[in-house]
Amino acid sequence: MTNELRVTVWNEYRHEKRSDEIAAIYPNGIHDAIATMLNAQPGIKAGTATLDEPEHGLTDDVLTNTDVLIWWGHMAHHEVKDAIVDKVHQRVLNGMGLIALHSAHFSKIFRRVMGTACSLKWREIGEKHRLWVTAPGHPIVDGLGEYFEVPHCEMYGEFFDIPQPDALVFISWFQGGEVFRSGACWYRGRGKVFYFQPGHETLPIYHHSEVQQVITNAVRWCAPVDVVGFREMSQAPNVQPLEKISDEA
Amino acid sequence: MTNELRVTVWNEYRHEKRSDEIAAIYPNGIHDAIATMLNAQPGIKAGTATLDEPEHGLTDDVLTNTDVLIWWGHMAHHEVKDAIVDKVHQRVLNGMGLIALHSAHFSKIFRRVMGTACSLKWREIGEKHRLWVTAPGHPIVDGLGEYFEVPHCEMYGEFFDIPQPDALVFISWFQGGEVFRSGACWYRGRGKVFYFQPGHETLPIYHHSEVQQVITNAVRWCAPVDVVGFREMSQAPNVQPLEKISDEA
Amino acid sequence: MTNELRVTVWNEYRHEKRSDEIAAIYPNGIHDAIATMLNAQPGIKAGTATLDEPEHGLTDDVLTNTDVLIWWGHMAHHEVKDAIVDKVHQRVLNGMGLIALHSAHFSKIFRRVMGTACSLKWREIGEKHRLWVTAPGHPIVDGLGEYFEVPHCEMYGEFFDIPQPDALVFISWFQGGEVFRSGACWYRGRGKVFYFQPGHETLPIYHHSEVQQVITNAVRWCAPVDVVGFREMSQAPNVQPLEKISDEA
Amino acid sequence: MTNELRVTVWNEYRHEKRSDEIAAIYPNGIHDAIATMLNAQPGIKAGTATLDEPEHGLTDDVLTNTDVLIWWGHMAHHEVKDAIVDKVHQRVLNGMGLIALHSAHFSKIFRRVMGTACSLKWREIGEKHRLWVTAPGHPIVDGLGEYFEVPHCEMYGEFFDIPQPDALVFISWFQGGEVFRSGACWYRGRGKVFYFQPGHETLPIYHHSEVQQVITNAVRWCAPVDVVGFREMSQAPNVQPLEKISDEA
Repeated sequence: MTNELRVTVWNEYRHEKRSDEIAAIYPNGIHDAIATMLNAQPGIKAGTATLDEPEHGLTDDVLTNTDVLIWWGHMAHHEVKDAIVDKVHQRVLNGMGLIALHSAHFSKIFRRVMGTACSLKWREIGEKHRLWVTAPGHPIVDGLGEYFEVPHCEMYGEFFDIPQPDALVFISWFQGGEVFRSGACWYRGRGKVFYFQPGHETLPIYHHSEVQQVITNAVRWCAPVDVVGFREMSQAPNVQPLEKISDEA
Repeated sequence: MTNELRVTVWNEYRHEKRSDEIAAIYPNGIHDAIATMLNAQPGIKAGTATLDEPEHGLTDDVLTNTDVLIWWGHMAHHEVKDAIVDKVHQRVLNGMGLIALHSAHFSKIFRRVMGTACSLKWREIGEKHRLWVTAPGHPIVDGLGEYFEVPHCEMYGEFFDIPQPDALVFISWFQGGEVFRSGACWYRGRGKVFYFQPGHETLPIYHHSEVQQVITNAVRWCAPVDVVGFREMSQAPNVQPLEKISDEA
Repeated sequence: MTNELRVTVWNEYRHEKRSDEIAAIYPNGIHDAIATMLNAQPGIKAGTATLDEPEHGLTDDVLTNTDVLIWWGHMAHHEVKDAIVDKVHQRVLNGMGLIALHSAHFSKIFRRVMGTACSLKWREIGEKHRLWVTAPGHPIVDGLGEYFEVPHCEMYGEFFDIPQPDALVFISWFQGGEVFRSGACWYRGRGKVFYFQPGHETLPIYHHSEVQQVITNAVRWCAPVDVVGFREMSQAPNVQPLEKISDEA
Repeated sequence: MTNELRVTVWNEYRHEKRSDEIAAIYPNGIHDAIATMLNAQPGIKAGTATLDEPEHGLTDDVLTNTDVLIWWGHMAHHEVKDAIVDKVHQRVLNGMGLIALHSAHFSKIFRRVMGTACSLKWREIGEKHRLWVTAPGHPIVDGLGEYFEVPHCEMYGEFFDIPQPDALVFISWFQGGEVFRSGACWYRGRGKVFYFQPGHETLPIYHHSEVQQVITNAVRWCAPVDVVGFREMSQAPNVQPLEKISDEA
């Protein structure tokens, strides 16, 4: 059907194959859990791609037919080929949305679009995490309340080395004393980027209803817009004047 | 029908009654021209309100049932009652979108939400005006090209005393040598605000297809989001701790 | 001496006169404590002004000779005359810096320059407060570390109804479970505005070294810049074209 | 001397050696002209580095002792070694300022810190160029008026594929009908970045007084701040909780 948002959920898909504990939470991988959830939403059609597929599952055909790419990676960021990162980068600049989840803060593609180190502080003791809404007019918080909690979460703390967001949507409180800019939006070229902190491989976070709501909202916010006749972002055309140049002017 | 965006187009509606020239372009007023155009769009239902109606047409009932308010004013900004401005301001902070058109840069409500003087340079000789897209990923430019032209336009030039926009969508080039931030977005409370420069009472600008496209897109971008249980923005509640406070902590 | 930054510290100065407890911390008022601290810094000369002086101490002469105005108010915001707020607003738009401290979030002048309700959540149990630096390249954090703590503080929590800051410098963690954007910068007209959360009348917060460092840095960041021949921001001049307008163009 | 800002002006230095016309304007290279101008300013000490020196003149020692790096390149961006770009990138994230001039929009280092293609439209017919100030409170415009003109300039036009700036300082008008965000600021890690459009190798733009003023102001704005104990941005430390984690909390 036309006007359906075409999402590809990318996952490195290693943790789930190595750990029974993780496999119990995400039997077919985090990507499958997210894609299944998204396919239950009206107007969204989600597929998946994983690291060990040829071209990491991100062939030209897949990328061309993806409106929004969701990225989850953790232990194998360095295995993602630069040539694929280059292609994904170009697609983002030319309109594809990108949603980076949790440990994807350190993925090559997220660091590429940010231009910063994307480093942070972290701790893994399953402490309590509360996300406060700081942009209640933003479509990504549609359906939420003032805050929501994730009972056991890996801590990510400031300083988070990202550019100042174009919109800062969530700030997190952690029990151990840290804060974190846990939901943030940026424009890049014709594309849009959203980073969202929740989501750890050993915790059932992508089954959490508010987390699912945010991801669904973010997919809609990231949707490409139809600008007409825009150049490919890699091009820098030499152009003729639109106005007559007169010396007297 | 549910989920229909309810728009109110407000106009001071004075120019049209005093000038045959203007009446020829907008026989039932600028508000009617914009509302008629919007009512032809799917999912939008637009009504109107004008200065000389009781409460300027902006009763509590009208405001409560308005998702997005479009504002056009020019010669009678000072006649708008402060009590109505207060109410509109509160509605914006609590989620209603606001679109300020052209000379509404000097309206009480736009100045109120900006916090600045909103002054600018101007000139009225009908020169050529070209609006360049500077945020090609923003939904407000959906359907446009790299730029569009308005053949005869009142010039508005920098410095435009507005806060730095949360998203700068258009920058204008004027034949006489000025530039202008002519399309700009801000978040305010739970509401969203868009300023759009084109539109002069003696020129048929609201019959221009790209201008109509931008206004329609802006209405959709300005739509309220459903946050659950958010306080009225005028309230500052004294709250209990969400966590146990221990001295040892 | 030339090039000295001229600061005026404004205080409503009521709490200190009514409470022995507060008077013990600030014997000559919060304004005097801050001005004394600033006068010990090189290149800064600070005076004071208070609510009960004629024109609240903010005569035309004082305002004209103030580069940066620091504002502290709490119980008597409503007693500040609108005519004085108008003048202060104009001075900010024409270049004067403004630093709003703690409960000044609800002052008339801060709400005026923000355009929002500036409401927040609050609680007064003296809990622990930790401010994290989120803009380590910003001059306001010069001399600080990754975070600093204020041992007993009034809690201010999100949602804080402010426009998205032009630079978000601090995010606060509170023991009771909230977060807060506790240091934020905005441009307004030719002026600059900084909001800084720490500072409660019954707590010796303005004797805290990091708090003093931030206020001093903020004064320097807020310094006016010398633009040449800029109009008063209240003016909207009708101007001649800078370029020849030709029909063929 | 302490507190002196240490600037390194980097130039690919090829045009000047190949063209008599360019050599006539910049006999010792653009880098020398800029460094000489900066060395005449109080509190600034400028050196130079060029492409054909070992390590492009940007040894570890030079980078460690550089507070602000100015970059000019055009025809040889691709000859800059990635290993050097990596080092410069790290220095920026750890506090060094970066000023990219004119055709440096396409330099590897500017594209790296932006995360976008940094492409634009261009035309080289020496048309008139007028830069309008859009942030009159920003220290980079200190000493300027509302606008300034560069009589003959290469045109750079929108869409300029950069992230939305943290502060947009100049917007340019070009005689041929285009506009351009010609002065823009971003925070990156602990560093600051400024892009400034004027400056073409065949035109004496760096002898222009307002252009010199802007570059000098930008050097001061880009100065590193002394944050204490901040980690290297490449590090992502695993940290202990600052607060006691209790299950009841």
